[in-house]
Amino acid sequence: MPGKQPAPGRPGKSAQRRPAPVPRGRRPDGEGWLYGRHAVAAALANPERSWRRLLILPGHEGEAAALIEKAQARQSGAAEALQVIDRAAFDRLLPAGAVHQGWALEVEPLEPSDLDDALRAAALLPGRAVIIVLDQASDPHNVGAVLRSAAAFGAAAVILAGHAAPPAAGALAKAASGALDLVKLVRAGNPAQTLDRLKAAGYWCVGLDEAAPAALAALDLGPRVALVLGSEGRGLRRLVRERCDWLARLPTRPRLPSLNLSNAAAIALYELMRGEPAA
Amino acid sequence: MPGKQPAPGRPGKSAQRRPAPVPRGRRPDGEGWLYGRHAVAAALANPERSWRRLLILPGHEGEAAALIEKAQARQSGAAEALQVIDRAAFDRLLPAGAVHQGWALEVEPLEPSDLDDALRAAALLPGRAVIIVLDQASDPHNVGAVLRSAAAFGAAAVILAGHAAPPAAGALAKAASGALDLVKLVRAGNPAQTLDRLKAAGYWCVGLDEAAPAALAALDLGPRVALVLGSEGRGLRRLVRERCDWLARLPTRPRLPSLNLSNAAAIALYELMRGEPAA
Repeated sequence: MPGKQPAPGRPGKSAQRRPAPVPRGRRPDGEGWLYGRHAVAAALANPERSWRRLLILPGHEGEAAALIEKAQARQSGAAEALQVIDRAAFDRLLPAGAVHQGWALEVEPLEPSDLDDALRAAALLPGRAVIIVLDQASDPHNVGAVLRSAAAFGAAAVILAGHAAPPAAGALAKAASGALDLVKLVRAGNPAQTLDRLKAAGYWCVGLDEAAPAALAALDLGPRVALVLGSEGRGLRRLVRERCDWLARLPTRPRLPSLNLSNAAAIALYELMRGEPAA
Repeated sequence: MPGKQPAPGRPGKSAQRRPAPVPRGRRPDGEGWLYGRHAVAAALANPERSWRRLLILPGHEGEAAALIEKAQARQSGAAEALQVIDRAAFDRLLPAGAVHQGWALEVEPLEPSDLDDALRAAALLPGRAVIIVLDQASDPHNVGAVLRSAAAFGAAAVILAGHAAPPAAGALAKAASGALDLVKLVRAGNPAQTLDRLKAAGYWCVGLDEAAPAALAALDLGPRVALVLGSEGRGLRRLVRERCDWLARLPTRPRLPSLNLSNAAAIALYELMRGEPAA
């Protein structure tokens, strides 16, 4: 990360100064703008997220004040960082077609998380603890969509193992739709080591494999599950497959058995969480 | 479609002539190249698909001959259209990172299907007949991934209603991973009219809506189901919602209740097909 970072939970420098005019199409360093009501609310509610300015359409003042009030418990100067702008200003600021719903938040990137952070976050969740391990995932849309489904179904973390993992910005952040503030994103070089550590922490490691004899729904997996997915097209690598406690398939048809990576992850999360409390 | 199309099930002109040298990075008109073993096998097995040339890596000759033999029952001159090339030639031909598995097929676009084609295809399937209706879907990756999941779980058709539907080529065809040859893709301007026709054909129309009180898994939907999804971010339009027989939700968490469009469709398909025979 370039330059000095503000402390977690504090707005960046610009929030303490008089707000600058809304930039026209320029993006600041770092993650830039989060948009959409869910993404903005999740970022404001995340004590580890530093932000600069909240921009809203007229009509959202009440809700924005409530969100900022909660955020202000942990920071000062935030009230200055709220600006009401019109639709045309949103259109100049955000990419064409962005579904902003009248909400945009200028943010700093999150501090990176490690496996210990993920295990701690998982321990705090009610019900089954699920951690997703993506081996050699390279497509930012897919990784972002997996984060989004992980947040939607209450998984604790997504671990990117192996090389070629995309940065937590741009297309990934957009596809995650706020999930970067709800789910830990961890980078781990060595997938075998990662699975060994998860197993030592009491996780059953289940690899998704279209050739596995057992259906995911038929397994009795207990309270801690690591769901392991290989790269699209190539599937699980041998060294990863051999480290899994179970291999399981989704009930796809023989004529086209493989699914898009994020679709496979979404279905598996749904299956693992279907009986859990929706906390 | 530009120019004259060869008759369905017949190879294009180039297959009847001496094969041209493998082009370097150029793409012919139309859909161009399908790649990956599943996509190529599905296209060769589809009697409605016209193709020009099959390119393979050394070692696939036996399987290629078997696939072409089946395809040859309906066309002549196909044997000339098989070429064995090396990895470097594949790399020059296909986009960087394409997971071709040693298979590439030069194809013509499919003839467009209409709602009657979709209903006929659905009537031939064993078990529950499912048709997916996407209202105002505009992202080709999402539509392609929905087609892929539809094929993987045995749905009959994907109907693109409303405007802004992407063309059945390029990013959509790639994301569909062969599903364009397995699932009917229908373009229908008016979603309300489409749902009325599906209802008249005995389909229960179920709209996915994160605010619906009923979970999809709790509905008893019978043998013919139309699964209706709105655009991402905006959800179902009022005129579409009001035409649905049921509204249903997936069990997502309140903190991030919405899913990526193709992820929502994949989970719903899994839920609708979980008890069906995997024909």
